[in-house]
Amino acid sequence: MRDLGEFGLIERIARLAGGVRSRDVALGIGDDAAVLRLAPAEELVVTTDAAVAGVHFRFDQETPRTAGRRAAVACLSDLAAMGARPLGLLLALALPPSRSATSTLGLVRGVVYEARRAGAPLVGGNVTRSRDVSLTLTALGAVRRGRALRRDRGRAGDRLFVTGALGRSALERARGRVRAVGVPRIAAGRRLAGLAGVGACIDLSDGLAADLLQLCRASRLAARLEVARLPLPAGFAAACARVALDPLPAALAGGEDYELLFSTRPRGPSAAALTRRLGVRVTEIGRLEAGRPAVRGVPPGALGWRHF
Amino acid sequence: MRDLGEFGLIERIARLAGGVRSRDVALGIGDDAAVLRLAPAEELVVTTDAAVAGVHFRFDQETPRTAGRRAAVACLSDLAAMGARPLGLLLALALPPSRSATSTLGLVRGVVYEARRAGAPLVGGNVTRSRDVSLTLTALGAVRRGRALRRDRGRAGDRLFVTGALGRSALERARGRVRAVGVPRIAAGRRLAGLAGVGACIDLSDGLAADLLQLCRASRLAARLEVARLPLPAGFAAACARVALDPLPAALAGGEDYELLFSTRPRGPSAAALTRRLGVRVTEIGRLEAGRPAVRGVPPGALGWRHF
Repeated sequence: MRDLGEFGLIERIARLAGGVRSRDVALGIGDDAAVLRLAPAEELVVTTDAAVAGVHFRFDQETPRTAGRRAAVACLSDLAAMGARPLGLLLALALPPSRSATSTLGLVRGVVYEARRAGAPLVGGNVTRSRDVSLTLTALGAVRRGRALRRDRGRAGDRLFVTGALGRSALERARGRVRAVGVPRIAAGRRLAGLAGVGACIDLSDGLAADLLQLCRASRLAARLEVARLPLPAGFAAACARVALDPLPAALAGGEDYELLFSTRPRGPSAAALTRRLGVRVTEIGRLEAGRPAVRGVPPGALGWRHF
Repeated sequence: MRDLGEFGLIERIARLAGGVRSRDVALGIGDDAAVLRLAPAEELVVTTDAAVAGVHFRFDQETPRTAGRRAAVACLSDLAAMGARPLGLLLALALPPSRSATSTLGLVRGVVYEARRAGAPLVGGNVTRSRDVSLTLTALGAVRRGRALRRDRGRAGDRLFVTGALGRSALERARGRVRAVGVPRIAAGRRLAGLAGVGACIDLSDGLAADLLQLCRASRLAARLEVARLPLPAGFAAACARVALDPLPAALAGGEDYELLFSTRPRGPSAAALTRRLGVRVTEIGRLEAGRPAVRGVPPGALGWRHF
């Protein structure tokens, strides 16, 4: 990075981000701040998330581009969990001066790829030096006033559903080389926010068990999982066996699946109807019930990963 | 931090941030994202900024609270430079597990103090481990549609003005112990955005010379400074002499003054009139003129600090 310099790097990032032609963006990269537009009936949804080398990604296990993509997906997935339409992304990049420009721009390319795919152009950011490489992303979205999906909207008796399949990311990591990247469920989240009878919603970043517990805490309820119903990827048991991975903990505590976990009122639509409405496979996996926040029906010792 | 844990820390931060009672905040800390409201005629202004221990602050030179305050001011000052009214702040905190809870919460207290003072409650964030302590802040604001102050709005012939006085932060640092913290010029920025005949605007974070050059680049103009007119704090020359600091480079390249630098059309208001309108002392310091981006009238070797 010494060759490129701070301003050189920012110029390269701005070029990678491309000329933003979004009706949501009044002013992109290059000023003291970005300026974005919302529709009059919309509220702003905003979230920030950091990915640190050696903690969230490792340069010896994945390409910089994949690391950048995963960082962006983690942040965009939070917009999906709120039912928001993405408006833009900001990237605060920290890196040692010794870091190569190629590796650094690989990270940025990964972020920009996922940002574009989600319809959230890179509109700003920051560059600083530090010992660890890290990407701190801020995702901005919009949702119709009062329609944001929330963790604290569950009720006793709600049915629990999850999109897609669980455990794919855990399997990737067990294989020792991360190539696949989760997909933030942006479209499904937006459709879900438009449905009646939806309760609480959260995205699966730390693993089903850990994230369901967060939903329980916010809604002040317990959850009962039917672990036999958890949707697993095709051929999952055999693939797990080859790397000596236990499939159930992988699905329960693997993390980074970025599926949506949500509840609906008891007389709401079936999993088949939700699958049609959301455009992604939806599986019923349990229910919310009265009680202290807890996830019931789960074998012990299968909780998600924690930072400290 | 091992004792408190990730969720314990987040709970403490949420408590320090306090019950947010802002009509702009529909949903604060605790969900996948925050939800904020803008008025129908407003646009969103958003900026992100990082402060890294060992780069932007040093624990042996200032308290954690002062470091947190300075990080928040740097970010909020970007809102001021856009003429925005602050809506909220997000804090992404990275720290080694060995870091004490007292020190960590000191950083957070500093951020919350400045956030409150600016009317921008802490509405979200993220906690992760890393080797370096760092705070990455995202500031959100609102400005009347089309009224955001910009760097690229200067014209040849514009008069250049600066708020307040320059060099105070450089003097603090030369004294080896940082106690004073700059003030983001939020109110002055908002008033400036409401005036007619204003050209370009930027806040002074890296130093007058460096930031004026940025304004020149964005506006594709040169600037001519009259360095004899630069506003210096009372007793500045004598204070500088005591620590063997050269006053002019301190004022030109000191950085972290967080004053606003802006231009107005040639027949615009005088410095005295601007002082009344903005509620802060305003000094005329030069003009914009045709030519390649450059700052003229400045002794060589007095440029701002760079990251790489």
